[in-house]
Amino acid sequence: MIVHVGEMHLFRLPEGDDLLQALVAHCRGAGIEAAWVHAIGAVRAPVIGAYDFATGRYRRVALEGDWELLSLSGNVSLAEGHDGPFAHLHVLLGDHEGGVRGGHLFAAEVRVAEVGLLALRGGAPQRVPQANGLLLWPLAGEEGG
Amino acid sequence: MIVHVGEMHLFRLPEGDDLLQALVAHCRGAGIEAAWVHAIGAVRAPVIGAYDFATGRYRRVALEGDWELLSLSGNVSLAEGHDGPFAHLHVLLGDHEGGVRGGHLFAAEVRVAEVGLLALRGGAPQRVPQANGLLLWPLAGEEGG
Amino acid sequence: MIVHVGEMHLFRLPEGDDLLQALVAHCRGAGIEAAWVHAIGAVRAPVIGAYDFATGRYRRVALEGDWELLSLSGNVSLAEGHDGPFAHLHVLLGDHEGGVRGGHLFAAEVRVAEVGLLALRGGAPQRVPQANGLLLWPLAGEEGG
Repeated sequence: MIVHVGEMHLFRLPEGDDLLQALVAHCRGAGIEAAWVHAIGAVRAPVIGAYDFATGRYRRVALEGDWELLSLSGNVSLAEGHDGPFAHLHVLLGDHEGGVRGGHLFAAEVRVAEVGLLALRGGAPQRVPQANGLLLWPLAGEEGG
Repeated sequence: MIVHVGEMHLFRLPEGDDLLQALVAHCRGAGIEAAWVHAIGAVRAPVIGAYDFATGRYRRVALEGDWELLSLSGNVSLAEGHDGPFAHLHVLLGDHEGGVRGGHLFAAEVRVAEVGLLALRGGAPQRVPQANGLLLWPLAGEEGG
Repeated sequence: MIVHVGEMHLFRLPEGDDLLQALVAHCRGAGIEAAWVHAIGAVRAPVIGAYDFATGRYRRVALEGDWELLSLSGNVSLAEGHDGPFAHLHVLLGDHEGGVRGGHLFAAEVRVAEVGLLALRGGAPQRVPQANGLLLWPLAGEEGG
């Protein structure tokens, strides 16, 4: 889907907020249904995961303490049967010795989060449940009118 | 090189496609000669690498199984002696315990790939072979008219 | 803060430059006070770190040799008491076997750095010193007129 580049939102999320929920709330408040988002900062007690195609379920990993938020990359779009903006985000996290962990973001308490959210206008992809349980965008040829 | 921001392409690549080749094919089909691209998702059997400045060659690492695509960042531009868009992409990959590997992307089979590709218009950098064998953009002062 | 998307700067930094200083110098030269920036390439002898909220200081880790620059993500804005553009950047670095380290970027010698810098116009967040010593953007409700 080809969409228009709107404005850039540069903002810091409050300490203590959940990173994922706060990003979605920002989009909801700003009337954003599609975006590409990046962030850096630091988080506490992140819960990350990886989708296991063999079992059709996410494996979750809960990390303790503070982590640098080295990369957050992902998108905001719509999803069938879901009210409002839906965020899909992947993160890379750094410990205090330079070691790195990462995964699909389930939850993380904001320590510092500087966000660059590129609002996209003129349409939003809509996720559709797949046979394997994932909520995915239609492929190019499958998009509805 | 300063270029104009065009439209954003939000799309999912089909499972089984090669991630790198599919991104280039998308650009070719859409007439895109310059872009900055990000993606998240999951891949199978990725081949990554690192350039060894001592030997002037890439060392390749072939990974087995499924990996979360935690970050894909890179660019599309032109290259001397190369027909059409040329992609240079770096990836970070996550295992099922939160462990991370990463490198220059040579190949990876798409499991799920959600792409945010910012099309750039009004010019494209052109890579030129260097003494060390790398294909690089001209430096600021070296750009042709 | 909501800002306008300006032009995209696609450029390669010269080998031997300090990555952080060269990015700031580029912004200064181009009159850029706000940007979101990404880069890939390779660096030598990077110095990275993580902020330790317990001590209120950054722990620094100096790495030896060459590293792939797998991801550089961050922003350029202004800062109180600081002259000109201020960059806050996080990086992920890859070794020759696919291993990854990462942190807040303090310094790194450029081997190859391909930069995609999205210039933002119509305002720039201004960092303000916090009680914990960090220089942070105001929260949404704290922004001045």
